[in-house]
Amino acid sequence: MISKESVIDDLNAVRSQSPLVHNISNYVVMNTTANALLAVGASPVMAHAVDEVEDMVKIASSLVINIGTLSRTWVEAMIKASKTAVERNIPVVFDPVGAGATSYRTVTSLQIIKECRPGVIRGNASEIMALVMEKGHTKGVESIVSPESAIAAAASLNRDTGAVIVISGPVDYIIDEQSVIEVRNGSPMMRKVTGLGCTATALIGAFMAVNKNFLMASAHAMTVMGIAGELAAKKSRGPGTMQMHFLDELYKLSGKEIASYYNAE
Amino acid sequence: MISKESVIDDLNAVRSQSPLVHNISNYVVMNTTANALLAVGASPVMAHAVDEVEDMVKIASSLVINIGTLSRTWVEAMIKASKTAVERNIPVVFDPVGAGATSYRTVTSLQIIKECRPGVIRGNASEIMALVMEKGHTKGVESIVSPESAIAAAASLNRDTGAVIVISGPVDYIIDEQSVIEVRNGSPMMRKVTGLGCTATALIGAFMAVNKNFLMASAHAMTVMGIAGELAAKKSRGPGTMQMHFLDELYKLSGKEIASYYNAE
Amino acid sequence: MISKESVIDDLNAVRSQSPLVHNISNYVVMNTTANALLAVGASPVMAHAVDEVEDMVKIASSLVINIGTLSRTWVEAMIKASKTAVERNIPVVFDPVGAGATSYRTVTSLQIIKECRPGVIRGNASEIMALVMEKGHTKGVESIVSPESAIAAAASLNRDTGAVIVISGPVDYIIDEQSVIEVRNGSPMMRKVTGLGCTATALIGAFMAVNKNFLMASAHAMTVMGIAGELAAKKSRGPGTMQMHFLDELYKLSGKEIASYYNAE
Repeated sequence: MISKESVIDDLNAVRSQSPLVHNISNYVVMNTTANALLAVGASPVMAHAVDEVEDMVKIASSLVINIGTLSRTWVEAMIKASKTAVERNIPVVFDPVGAGATSYRTVTSLQIIKECRPGVIRGNASEIMALVMEKGHTKGVESIVSPESAIAAAASLNRDTGAVIVISGPVDYIIDEQSVIEVRNGSPMMRKVTGLGCTATALIGAFMAVNKNFLMASAHAMTVMGIAGELAAKKSRGPGTMQMHFLDELYKLSGKEIASYYNAE
Repeated sequence: MISKESVIDDLNAVRSQSPLVHNISNYVVMNTTANALLAVGASPVMAHAVDEVEDMVKIASSLVINIGTLSRTWVEAMIKASKTAVERNIPVVFDPVGAGATSYRTVTSLQIIKECRPGVIRGNASEIMALVMEKGHTKGVESIVSPESAIAAAASLNRDTGAVIVISGPVDYIIDEQSVIEVRNGSPMMRKVTGLGCTATALIGAFMAVNKNFLMASAHAMTVMGIAGELAAKKSRGPGTMQMHFLDELYKLSGKEIASYYNAE
Repeated sequence: MISKESVIDDLNAVRSQSPLVHNISNYVVMNTTANALLAVGASPVMAHAVDEVEDMVKIASSLVINIGTLSRTWVEAMIKASKTAVERNIPVVFDPVGAGATSYRTVTSLQIIKECRPGVIRGNASEIMALVMEKGHTKGVESIVSPESAIAAAASLNRDTGAVIVISGPVDYIIDEQSVIEVRNGSPMMRKVTGLGCTATALIGAFMAVNKNFLMASAHAMTVMGIAGELAAKKSRGPGTMQMHFLDELYKLSGKEIASYYNAE
């Protein structure tokens, strides 16, 4: 199971292997997530053309799909890349940004999950709820999501898809058929910087590249993300300094800091 | 009319209501403006697919249209979203980035203004001039724009469109049929950071969501923008630190600071 | 030939002329490169629509083409803009991001080079190698690129295309038919910030606008880039602070600093 040591081992593996992480992501966060992947030790590449996504994913160690600013040609490329990845056992993580906000996002998310079989799905509680509600498992007001109902939705989504489900929030929950890991790191200031949820997804992609146990890989990524955020928040006056310090902390994060801030179970 | 107190009231309203601001904007500034909207207390969403912009704008409290990196499918989405917004009394602010630089930008800007009826149009002096010149009201060299001729152009554009016109520059002018408000905040260093004009437009969007008097909403947004820029410039060595401090200052901006730096009439 | 004085002269020319640099670039770096161009004293514009690229490039002083996140309509615009630029003697610099990684990138790069005749091509060693290997000049493993073989590839690419070739790395090589200039500035920390290679290309664009000797313009740009990076790295704890300080240093860079850090031959 997850431990201080397992987090440190995987972070060291990312740093030493520097896996190529292929991102088909959104316009808002591409720069941020590329920088976060570099800071954690991975090698990011962004490529979305239908003419090349299959070739690109074949040389990658993992694939990150994020629908933050989706449109038709991008979704086509996401599906093409994901299918190629899954055929070749290249890990795929999916971020259903804004699922539930528009029907296009919810329907597209469900299509991607069905056709592409991502190994991990990461969202906030209302996004995960939306994916399950749409399928008729749950009814309720998505704006009031208790941890319990989000975890129940995640368990349902895991049963239907086989994917590890990550719900990020004040406490992050990482869920498969047998376990619910809770990661209690991070800072409220992280919500004032755009795209840190997308960054979490990208970091999960980096950790899936070095650890084929996706439950562990996801929990390790969320722990590293959360501790870097916590350390950065202490040094920050506001969201501008936060964004900068977050990258520095991710880059410098030591085994000692991980051991000292580790708060998962 | 505008006062220290009215600025503070609207900023507090943005912070407490956290309005959802839908942006159809450009690739260069999406990250920056999303961060600025978060810092000021609003909730940004970026969505441009023709398949979802109508659904997205329906749940938003205001809409920001920015043609900085326009192309055909994006313009189609901008018009679709704006029409839906106007039908539903959701405020729309339009930023004609680069109007006058190419005929495509000028023509598209005029089409958007005509078909979508934005409540506010914000640009620099030469962009506002270009929109009026194109319509035959004015002839002149746009590179030499005196405040007087820019204000005259804005008054003309206001008469034709009904929109509040905001001309940003060393002094910002906010203009409707009856008033010209001058906001004298900001710093020359703001021009060395890309996209702060676009950020001003996005902040106007946030303030329109909480104040249906668009003249006041725009003047309040420009004041908050300018004071945050002024405070940030004092702490900055150059445009890198400026970008970071601007977000921090926007996030932390206090009533006391507004009262102390307020310089509008 | 290159000297401290020639670097300072060109930097002063960029700052005083503030050339309009038209970029058709990638989603990841648009914000970063726009900020770097502003910091160095140029005026960036980003425009990619086939409906306007010809009009935009006609008013520009140079054109930067970067295929980092290429797709068909973007490539169409790149070729259209480049042809117009070359017809009008407007300098063009080309960045073949990821050439060799996918066949689409390599083939597109060769097409752009053939049809558009850029004055300068800048890439890392493996990208430059890929452009030459594809043409049958070289066989080998591109992941192991010695400086000697990269320089040989660059010389071959220069013979075929007439373009000045810039290979960036720990040492930057600027190559034409007669010279190989070596620039020994920079810091390893620059590789931990996404898009600084693209920034180098954009800065070359700015310097080509003020110096029609493209060998010199490129060497000057790489020197300014490298010294700013070196100064920034000294102040930085990690890639977050690095990104910020790099813009500040580029903005503030003095003749004295250039004279003190200059290390080219």
